Amino acid sequence: MSNKTNSGHFFEDFKVGQSIQHATPRTITEGDVALYIALTGSRYAQFSSQKFAFDVGFEVAPVDSLLLFHIVFGKSVPDISLNAVANLGYAECKFLRTVKAGDTINSQSEIIGVKENSNGKTGVVYVRTRGFNQFGKEVLSYCRWVMVNKRDANHPAPRAELPNLAPFVAPTDLVAPCELKPEAWDCDLSGSKYSYEDYEIGEKIDHKDGMTVEEAEHQIATRLYQNTAKVHFDGFGMKASRFGKRLIYGGVVISTARAIAFNGLENAGQIIAINAGRHVNPLFAGDTIYAWSEVLDKVEIGGGWGALRLRLIATKDLPCDHFPLKTESGDYLPDVLLDLDYWVAIPLRRFMQIGV
Amino acid sequence: MSNKTNSGHFFEDFKVGQSIQHATPRTITEGDVALYIALTGSRYAQFSSQKFAFDVGFEVAPVDSLLLFHIVFGKSVPDISLNAVANLGYAECKFLRTVKAGDTINSQSEIIGVKENSNGKTGVVYVRTRGFNQFGKEVLSYCRWVMVNKRDANHPAPRAELPNLAPFVAPTDLVAPCELKPEAWDCDLSGSKYSYEDYEIGEKIDHKDGMTVEEAEHQIATRLYQNTAKVHFDGFGMKASRFGKRLIYGGVVISTARAIAFNGLENAGQIIAINAGRHVNPLFAGDTIYAWSEVLDKVEIGGGWGALRLRLIATKDLPCDHFPLKTESGDYLPDVLLDLDYWVAIPLRRFMQIGV
Amino acid sequence: MSNKTNSGHFFEDFKVGQSIQHATPRTITEGDVALYIALTGSRYAQFSSQKFAFDVGFEVAPVDSLLLFHIVFGKSVPDISLNAVANLGYAECKFLRTVKAGDTINSQSEIIGVKENSNGKTGVVYVRTRGFNQFGKEVLSYCRWVMVNKRDANHPAPRAELPNLAPFVAPTDLVAPCELKPEAWDCDLSGSKYSYEDYEIGEKIDHKDGMTVEEAEHQIATRLYQNTAKVHFDGFGMKASRFGKRLIYGGVVISTARAIAFNGLENAGQIIAINAGRHVNPLFAGDTIYAWSEVLDKVEIGGGWGALRLRLIATKDLPCDHFPLKTESGDYLPDVLLDLDYWVAIPLRRFMQIGV
Repeated sequence: MSNKTNSGHFFEDFKVGQSIQHATPRTITEGDVALYIALTGSRYAQFSSQKFAFDVGFEVAPVDSLLLFHIVFGKSVPDISLNAVANLGYAECKFLRTVKAGDTINSQSEIIGVKENSNGKTGVVYVRTRGFNQFGKEVLSYCRWVMVNKRDANHPAPRAELPNLAPFVAPTDLVAPCELKPEAWDCDLSGSKYSYEDYEIGEKIDHKDGMTVEEAEHQIATRLYQNTAKVHFDGFGMKASRFGKRLIYGGVVISTARAIAFNGLENAGQIIAINAGRHVNPLFAGDTIYAWSEVLDKVEIGGGWGALRLRLIATKDLPCDHFPLKTESGDYLPDVLLDLDYWVAIPLRRFMQIGV
Repeated sequence: MSNKTNSGHFFEDFKVGQSIQHATPRTITEGDVALYIALTGSRYAQFSSQKFAFDVGFEVAPVDSLLLFHIVFGKSVPDISLNAVANLGYAECKFLRTVKAGDTINSQSEIIGVKENSNGKTGVVYVRTRGFNQFGKEVLSYCRWVMVNKRDANHPAPRAELPNLAPFVAPTDLVAPCELKPEAWDCDLSGSKYSYEDYEIGEKIDHKDGMTVEEAEHQIATRLYQNTAKVHFDGFGMKASRFGKRLIYGGVVISTARAIAFNGLENAGQIIAINAGRHVNPLFAGDTIYAWSEVLDKVEIGGGWGALRLRLIATKDLPCDHFPLKTESGDYLPDVLLDLDYWVAIPLRRFMQIGV
Repeated sequence: MSNKTNSGHFFEDFKVGQSIQHATPRTITEGDVALYIALTGSRYAQFSSQKFAFDVGFEVAPVDSLLLFHIVFGKSVPDISLNAVANLGYAECKFLRTVKAGDTINSQSEIIGVKENSNGKTGVVYVRTRGFNQFGKEVLSYCRWVMVNKRDANHPAPRAELPNLAPFVAPTDLVAPCELKPEAWDCDLSGSKYSYEDYEIGEKIDHKDGMTVEEAEHQIATRLYQNTAKVHFDGFGMKASRFGKRLIYGGVVISTARAIAFNGLENAGQIIAINAGRHVNPLFAGDTIYAWSEVLDKVEIGGGWGALRLRLIATKDLPCDHFPLKTESGDYLPDVLLDLDYWVAIPLRRFMQIGV
């Protein structure tokens, strides 16, 4: 018998201030980029075309922020959330440096808060996870909090410590993806003539398209991110869960919804911050994802870019022409999957080349 | 509310002479090539091995013509066929330049014909779509015609204009894929000793193998091509269609049948023109594709290559040892999926190295 | 009608001493590596990170031995096992040279034994298959034996010739993957502090995780390896088989079990030899794979590496906390899929950098 296997950490294992270097560094390659397109259907031009990216001002095509996020997140799972009951939320997610194919990413976390639940069986752990490139430069930072089981219900509760998390990433903290060249963003190639100036606060966009997710698809995607959470893969074990089947990784919902959101946000490919995010209901294989967006705020951030603060709502088996969200009593509709609040970069009009 | 989303064009939006630059340029990478092999099972040596390709006379391994075709086609979907009732046919498809991993492709279309149907609700639109590489050089050109809904049945019919399409690509228009080196094409590595000279007009080949297609597979393939037609992805929405489920992109049928056709056409990997093509019946997930071929014509095209004009028939759940095609009354059998007429390049015998 | 298609060889076609160059050379790319991660969930650091690989002493990241094995194996299928009744076993599998993305691999086999079965309808064929890189250097060599149908039951039995196969690869034949740099193997990044010295003969490890395999997943993987065996792909044809459905390629079981085995063998990513292997029961889509390992032997092999001889048992729908294997009467349990005996390289402690 051996004790070499990782059974994950339990609530009482986490101490505020503790730092963890996560395993499995990853060189992101053109293979990952091709798979990300094949798994999501992403069409944003700067990720799809080296020439487009270079022509507008990137050195080379950047890797989609969400592909980076999922890879950094995946590494943290064995240390943070293997025994998680629920992934409760995200905050203060900032994309700090452009990552490109060929870069090698590793991931570290710090425990920034703990609070035992009143039932004495679980607690909430707050972590800040950072991604670094091969030069040790920070490329991504975000907080998340998860509900984790205690190993031993009799273990005394730690002193509750809660981090002070910003309600949203401040505009002054947003990093422009590159220095855009004037009149270089070809709108025929990007698929839309709408620039920063064209979006208005309060505007809602139904992204129209629907995408059904199969077991094979979410498993391939989640393994690509080297995320090992058992709930996504162990169909036999999950028969005994309250769902009776595998759960789909929430990142698959985010990426699918963002790919659908191309229709209406064609020039807004580049996520630069995530303010808050909640997976409101679970997604299962065979469900069809739809999505709509609302513009919450807007601000210029330099380099030829503006930033739109967007709310992205994803639903299952429910088209979004009526912008479904909550019941009259204020609860999320059972068909709503995701409520995501994020900043996305979009060119100012004078940096765009608007076709005839 | 926003009007920024693309709902696609309707029949009355298309004018003869109109030119459209399609969005989402794409750098084809080694990741795409690996995925194409994984999704089709393709085994043609010049696409699989850099060394084989270089040894026979290519600068580097070419990208499979069909992968290029699907990528160019996919870009045209949001502008041309989002509201298509049916993809009626292809003609005059010519592969003009070899494309390799690293090339960036964009796609443009010109409307070359319109004809309203007598029901007043739909019309047929003829387009010529061209693919260009990062140097602006044309790599692919083809015509297709689709039946498209009218937005408003009361809109007056345009003057019918029909393009004059060639029944097949003339041998003089065929472009040899490269200059072959004498006795360099290693038949042990390619998998067959049969050269151009060995195929006879009228010869039929049963390709024997069968390949079942799953929902996840055709969705991953069709997204890889950034083809957004809803019928392939929106399982919830398609429940209300006359099929009751998702339709598989016809390009998946073509690529699967061509991969199966390796067995008997091992040296004929390189499609250089498509004369005509019809998707005779739809394919659904769970169906198994079989295929057979007939040699329609043959001609030498220079550079050490001959060209075979082939008819490729794909069926579903019907092995092809009896070359199934039509009923006695001349209709296609309900099990026939595809009737494709194309030119493929194959080395002349003296450019081959025939093993013991 | 044509006779150009390959219907595979039958028992009477194989002669001892016969040599076969298999078709379809393959350049392994970063696309293949990304797909291998996405299909298996592999997390061993030296395959995942170029930087990790370089830092410990590799020139560049090596390709996972199993990806190489499946590609070399796949090429042999059309010539060796298209008419196989069963893949009976492996022996003397040695990985001789590190293979990296960009290398082009081809595959050759020699017939080293034949023995007709007493029923007169089938026989066992023994082959040694070798993989070579683009410089003609041997990278992999293994023996396997398969039961193959006779074309004609009346064909006289050949003189039985059986190869003399070693029960396991001798430690002196093991090739170290590279020259490790002292204290360079970062255990935080690799995911475990356990070195060669920490594993004991007789130690058993339950790898805990389960992975369900879908039809689309095993088909995509098996096509990636360009393995064409019909039993894996032809769902329509397999309805008439005794299984009533597609069989999953045994290599998918091996690779999935090895990815699961990361949990407890984090530093033992590099398979350097396979001593013996049996696919004890078939795997079908929807089944969930679990795995456990036993340490059979250990030896130092130079370059900073030790080698562990491991037995890997994979099961279906049966977690491995009780190390399931055989019934009291000595037969394999019906839930056991795989019994694999192999050597894996793992760093000695003084070549590791053990974190706090």
